[in-house]
Amino acid sequence: MSDKLIDRVVNQVFTEKALHKFYCVGDTCAGWERNVVDQPTAVKQIVNNGAERISAGKGVGSELNDISLARMIDHTMLKPEATPQEITTLCEEAKKYNFASVCVNPSYVPLCSKLLVGTDVKVCTVIGFPLGATSTAAKRAEAEDVLNEGAQEIDMVINIGKLKAGDYQYVFNDINQVVLAAKRKNAVAKVIIETALLSDEEKVKACLISKEAKADFVKTSTGFSKGGATAGDIALMRYVVGSSVGVKASGGVRTLEDAEEMIKSGADRIGASASVKIVTGDKSESKGY
Amino acid sequence: MSDKLIDRVVNQVFTEKALHKFYCVGDTCAGWERNVVDQPTAVKQIVNNGAERISAGKGVGSELNDISLARMIDHTMLKPEATPQEITTLCEEAKKYNFASVCVNPSYVPLCSKLLVGTDVKVCTVIGFPLGATSTAAKRAEAEDVLNEGAQEIDMVINIGKLKAGDYQYVFNDINQVVLAAKRKNAVAKVIIETALLSDEEKVKACLISKEAKADFVKTSTGFSKGGATAGDIALMRYVVGSSVGVKASGGVRTLEDAEEMIKSGADRIGASASVKIVTGDKSESKGY
Repeated sequence: MSDKLIDRVVNQVFTEKALHKFYCVGDTCAGWERNVVDQPTAVKQIVNNGAERISAGKGVGSELNDISLARMIDHTMLKPEATPQEITTLCEEAKKYNFASVCVNPSYVPLCSKLLVGTDVKVCTVIGFPLGATSTAAKRAEAEDVLNEGAQEIDMVINIGKLKAGDYQYVFNDINQVVLAAKRKNAVAKVIIETALLSDEEKVKACLISKEAKADFVKTSTGFSKGGATAGDIALMRYVVGSSVGVKASGGVRTLEDAEEMIKSGADRIGASASVKIVTGDKSESKGY
Repeated sequence: MSDKLIDRVVNQVFTEKALHKFYCVGDTCAGWERNVVDQPTAVKQIVNNGAERISAGKGVGSELNDISLARMIDHTMLKPEATPQEITTLCEEAKKYNFASVCVNPSYVPLCSKLLVGTDVKVCTVIGFPLGATSTAAKRAEAEDVLNEGAQEIDMVINIGKLKAGDYQYVFNDINQVVLAAKRKNAVAKVIIETALLSDEEKVKACLISKEAKADFVKTSTGFSKGGATAGDIALMRYVVGSSVGVKASGGVRTLEDAEEMIKSGADRIGASASVKIVTGDKSESKGY
């Protein structure tokens, strides 16, 4: 994707945002996805500018029950001091509640692969995490290593500094190398853009580049930066990537209400450590990510 | 190093700590290093238990001037959003003040190697950073990659969860693989033990294992966890590793006074982003790491 095309699409998205504010009064437009209904001409123009499809918000309007919600959650423990015993408990909970995956640091992939063999719960891990500032070669090697150890989903962090400097080709290749490694093993590749450190314009660019690099998902946050997922960011990301790419909300999603808000805004995957509380509706205090 | 030996040395260190409290009243013992003077028998026993040498505190008593202080500082910028322009400024400052190194994320090693060629300022980078929870194979591959790109010093993070679980052999091998990669290129290997997440006993174990794995330095903190270097931790680390291994204080070292306190406690290297303020004595507010 050329820099000029990226700039054109970014400008178009911002034009859309202005149009949206103009057209939507009160609750008449609940989210970005309403543009599909309200602004067909503008949407067509976006599509022509490079976005394949505009989403109407996958989760919107669908009735959630505990089982379907659990299948949208990556049950996550990424704290560096997590012990094998805690990771074992994480896997047991994931089996009990039938979560989509456990999301753990790379050194625990062998343990989780062993504990989850023969179940529907996938092993998800993180690459270049949480700073995204390792070399592309290291990210690729790290991805190949975890895939060989049994990881079925990999969440990689973009190089944020290079994005800010406008080095889109670097950012594209950095993502694409990890995606290619994942595809060879039929694994899912998610791209963490770390929304808390990006301007809206940079979020749009990061989503477009991720889509171009054939990522399966874009994901908001590592949970280790200044902030986590917001409904506005989820809506923006869904709007930009369309329906062919997933959107994962992560960082600060601690209650059923948080999860539902993310899903209503367009998320089709949730990363959370409070997953059990989310699916059981437990209201007690959570320590978070 | 066998688990039994580690346990013996840990017990001995804690006995020493109790003795120290008993013998030292008021300012008569300024730090752990005074044990060398005050408790020769106990010190001899420690040596017999596996520590090669007990330090009298390398920096203690030496008069510091700006030049020697600068040569003890790794001028650091590890924030994920750092741009090539900011890293260029970091290198220019390092040349101007003659810092020991610049410490940057791996994706900036090629840029720094180019900018610092022919100078006394080394290129330092970080491995498995900041969680330390990537696989040993990935840490080794990442180390080889940055060494090939020109890194002369590498600061790696231990696997904290495995240390807490008592898997010392894993922790030893994880460190040793990176150290071996560094030694092949005559590079310096530092081991970040992330003191903020460890008990005193775990700090002692981490230092002993690092020394056994032939690390050149032990280092307190990534700067991305709950806390940074403290004088007490520096003294404890110096006490445990002796004088043949360096001690690097990092995380929260923001002023000349902070740096001097660390050096007096036994540090012979400082990691800081406020390095220019430290050597110039500038008192204005610093944003920190």
